[in-house]
Amino acid sequence: MQISSERLIADLRALAEFGRCGTGVDRPAFSDADILARRWLEGRMAEAGLETSIDRVGNVFGKSPAAGPALLFGSHTDSVPRGGWLDGALGVIYGLEIARAFADAKSGAAIDVIAFQDEEGAHLPCLGSRSFCEELENREIDSASGGHLLELIAEHGLAGAAPTHLDRSRTRAYLEAHIEQGPRLEAKAKRIGIVTGIVSIRRFRVRAEGQADHAGTTPMDMRKDAGAALIHLAHAMLDEMPRLAGPDTVWNCGNVVFEPGAANVVPSASELILEVRDAEGRRLDQIEERIMALVSAADRHSQVSVAATKTADVDGIAMDSELGKHIADAAKENGAPSMSMPSGAGHDAMILARHLPSAMLFIPSIGGRSHDITEDTDEADIILGCQVLAHAAASILTT
Amino acid sequence: MQISSERLIADLRALAEFGRCGTGVDRPAFSDADILARRWLEGRMAEAGLETSIDRVGNVFGKSPAAGPALLFGSHTDSVPRGGWLDGALGVIYGLEIARAFADAKSGAAIDVIAFQDEEGAHLPCLGSRSFCEELENREIDSASGGHLLELIAEHGLAGAAPTHLDRSRTRAYLEAHIEQGPRLEAKAKRIGIVTGIVSIRRFRVRAEGQADHAGTTPMDMRKDAGAALIHLAHAMLDEMPRLAGPDTVWNCGNVVFEPGAANVVPSASELILEVRDAEGRRLDQIEERIMALVSAADRHSQVSVAATKTADVDGIAMDSELGKHIADAAKENGAPSMSMPSGAGHDAMILARHLPSAMLFIPSIGGRSHDITEDTDEADIILGCQVLAHAAASILTT
Repeated sequence: MQISSERLIADLRALAEFGRCGTGVDRPAFSDADILARRWLEGRMAEAGLETSIDRVGNVFGKSPAAGPALLFGSHTDSVPRGGWLDGALGVIYGLEIARAFADAKSGAAIDVIAFQDEEGAHLPCLGSRSFCEELENREIDSASGGHLLELIAEHGLAGAAPTHLDRSRTRAYLEAHIEQGPRLEAKAKRIGIVTGIVSIRRFRVRAEGQADHAGTTPMDMRKDAGAALIHLAHAMLDEMPRLAGPDTVWNCGNVVFEPGAANVVPSASELILEVRDAEGRRLDQIEERIMALVSAADRHSQVSVAATKTADVDGIAMDSELGKHIADAAKENGAPSMSMPSGAGHDAMILARHLPSAMLFIPSIGGRSHDITEDTDEADIILGCQVLAHAAASILTT
Repeated sequence: MQISSERLIADLRALAEFGRCGTGVDRPAFSDADILARRWLEGRMAEAGLETSIDRVGNVFGKSPAAGPALLFGSHTDSVPRGGWLDGALGVIYGLEIARAFADAKSGAAIDVIAFQDEEGAHLPCLGSRSFCEELENREIDSASGGHLLELIAEHGLAGAAPTHLDRSRTRAYLEAHIEQGPRLEAKAKRIGIVTGIVSIRRFRVRAEGQADHAGTTPMDMRKDAGAALIHLAHAMLDEMPRLAGPDTVWNCGNVVFEPGAANVVPSASELILEVRDAEGRRLDQIEERIMALVSAADRHSQVSVAATKTADVDGIAMDSELGKHIADAAKENGAPSMSMPSGAGHDAMILARHLPSAMLFIPSIGGRSHDITEDTDEADIILGCQVLAHAAASILTT
């Protein structure tokens, strides 16, 4: 099984022309650039011999004429504003190239390819994959972006298109390649990442409420300083986190706000956001318990009232370990150093994995950059990743 | 020496009608309400037998026809937006009432009264007192509020008025009464505060610069987290401050800002403002040295670059202790519990004290509230404060 590196790179470069923005792309879901890219992609899929359709939410599906069991390859072609040229596009074009490689080899295998819509959430995060897996209710589409999504679907002539759904009886597994969007592969000189799972995310908003006072005339012991209380609490949380964390736990205090925020006024209120990610739900439970205990202690031991709200609780999901083994073996076969790792970011595979065996392959991101026009990957890594995934597919189909 | 409490309260209430805003006043310098209030005040001064003038910057001066040595009483009649009815107005009407009381008593003493302009800095902080003490250069007036101050002076017919200046040969001392603007007198059940000095203020901006990264995909040990670095530093500073502080030192971290401030992005930069006030400059030197050492340590010991800039360095000034003794004795005479205290806020006396012996008397603020329409003081405290100041004046003039 041999992919064409020229064809692969040419198609990635061609797709990157839609919404091109310096070295990256600006191609949010349902922008003109996004829809034009999807129409182009449908044409390339048809040239590859696939039966094509664009469904109501903008998913581009290329179905192999061969009977199942099929392997489904995909990702998304929409981007964040001023995003990278690879991101989701990579996994889609890998699928297209692998379908062509299997056809060239006259293998008779069924390789289906899909480009999901709006993974990035310009209107609804994972719109396409959720619709494909029948997890999406119509009223969510109706109300997205205040009704604007519905208008865009009509504007682009998709209002009458039927939704495309996952055919469970036909599809044996879902395989998604993606850039890592982080620095770990590069740092460890690995060229292939085998994703063990997509992490769970919990997000907390901590708010302290005190009293605004003149910072020159109010003695220290008479203040209800919401700013100082939050600083001490944030310090305690960040200080304790390494002891609570597992090897792959990550956390971030991404924002702090003081009110009214003046140099000479004791802060009347303050807020921070703390986010914690880990593949292990039980570990997150323990961390959450400890965060809440620290918040309660701050509330009890200061003149300020402190409370936390959980603002996000996204369940992660494990990838299929059997499929992962096929990828690891294929990497070895191709002399590509690989490592297992969780995905700290969400992907369409998070949705698909709830419905069929799914796996993800990562290739390195230069400098760990992503969601920015500076995002890039060495061309040799792009080609190697596709070759490894093609070999893994062949191996999966023969077991 | 006996003041008229009816006359005092009536004038304070009458002045509070100009720019009335609920229970407070909205009377920033050079607003129509401010100028109307000044014209009214000039009339009341004239009725009290003073020789009156409004100078170029809006200072209302009432000069006793008696020969010196004179005592000068004053404060300001401008307010912050939606401010309190007493604030600066109190000290001005105290002066007016004391001038009347001395005249009623046919004492022959020279009591001069002044209402300074724009102490609150709507255009230039302490505009009036700086002009009066010849500390102000014309170009500062010309450029204030982008030239708008000059327009307002012309609009209110003051462009041709001469500036009024302090007559050092005539004036023996400056006396300013003010509401405390803090909770200390109330908390200690004292009715008179004798101000020992106006504190010095130093303000620092601390900025940390790291790198924005995806908070899900970047391992903890590869981050340059400007947010976490700032939290640890802020904690260290606030934690150490009580050990560096004297009994009257106050400090405030009034604002913290994270950039870009998103839950899932490692902060690329962060900033805080720290303000420290104390009457003792040497103590502030020690505190500043320690703050800078903590900043340097944070810069050295993290992956983030941290630096501090001193953004304000306002020298305080001691009040005249002899004058203070006269106030303390007068309080005792009137059965008013008193205490010595620094002023944590700036006042016109800060300017005057550089040019002649000056003193300040505080009366309690209910709940410590100020710079808000909820600012208030018990009427009995208002009357007592004026009586004490009148007695102090009599005592000063006889020594």
